[in-house]
Amino acid sequence: MMNQTISATARALLSTPSDREFRMERIFNAKRERVWKAMTEPELIAQWWGRGNRLVIERFEFERGGHWRFVEHSDHGVHGFEGRYREITAIERIVSSFEWDGMPAHVLIQTMTLEQLADGRTKLVSTALFHTTAERDGMMHSGMEGGANLSYEALDRVLAALG
Amino acid sequence: MMNQTISATARALLSTPSDREFRMERIFNAKRERVWKAMTEPELIAQWWGRGNRLVIERFEFERGGHWRFVEHSDHGVHGFEGRYREITAIERIVSSFEWDGMPAHVLIQTMTLEQLADGRTKLVSTALFHTTAERDGMMHSGMEGGANLSYEALDRVLAALG
Repeated sequence: MMNQTISATARALLSTPSDREFRMERIFNAKRERVWKAMTEPELIAQWWGRGNRLVIERFEFERGGHWRFVEHSDHGVHGFEGRYREITAIERIVSSFEWDGMPAHVLIQTMTLEQLADGRTKLVSTALFHTTAERDGMMHSGMEGGANLSYEALDRVLAALG
Repeated sequence: MMNQTISATARALLSTPSDREFRMERIFNAKRERVWKAMTEPELIAQWWGRGNRLVIERFEFERGGHWRFVEHSDHGVHGFEGRYREITAIERIVSSFEWDGMPAHVLIQTMTLEQLADGRTKLVSTALFHTTAERDGMMHSGMEGGANLSYEALDRVLAALG
């Protein structure tokens, strides 16, 4: 492979720390400030979150207690996602709720942290906590992992363009 | 006590079926259809949910996937509560999410069932499932039990008036 370095970071590391959680870890080739920017500015989020699908950001109140709502328009239909921010610590950590319109009131809590690595890259750790194991497993079997990896690859491209 | 029968039903039975749940059971002196009506028509909800405090029902989309948002105005301040309906089975069962603005994205799932008793009364069973034991305990120590009992007593009065 010619792009071995890129390939080495291209797949998120998925694990299950408990029977109601999953955890994803992924390294990005950018400093933490830049990753934070791409993850928290709506015009940038719209470029990667939907993995190429059009994303309409209906609500983005980026503060504790604020709501978010993203609607993804794909060939397979329109999918709404929403939640609320529990905690925001700039460039370091976001805790928020997340639900998909297709399974209303099945709510997971996502904790996302960014760690600056010595080599200038940034490690993202994202954990999701569900009310039940069945909800966790349902999400894991829904194609979530492949979808997340496609989003992260799109985020790689946004980060490179920001460079 | 002169009103012994009323007193016997006036306190909800509280229990903890698991380390992330609590359960309340309460009998109402009304048929199930009437209890359902008082719990699902906004102008009636406004008469008991706030235990005497003014309740503004900002959102009440009473269907699967719909949102609800109630704002209580008391001498101690303004408190917003909101969530979304997961499941509605008429006169029998409602499953919904619930959060208080003061602890955004701390979300519990409430399952409420109504059972018609042979004597014409109705048994309400309400369970709340939290993401963590700490959240469950925080809610239980917040005065929730006393507040719920006051709401249920106000609901008794609404049911009697509907009679």
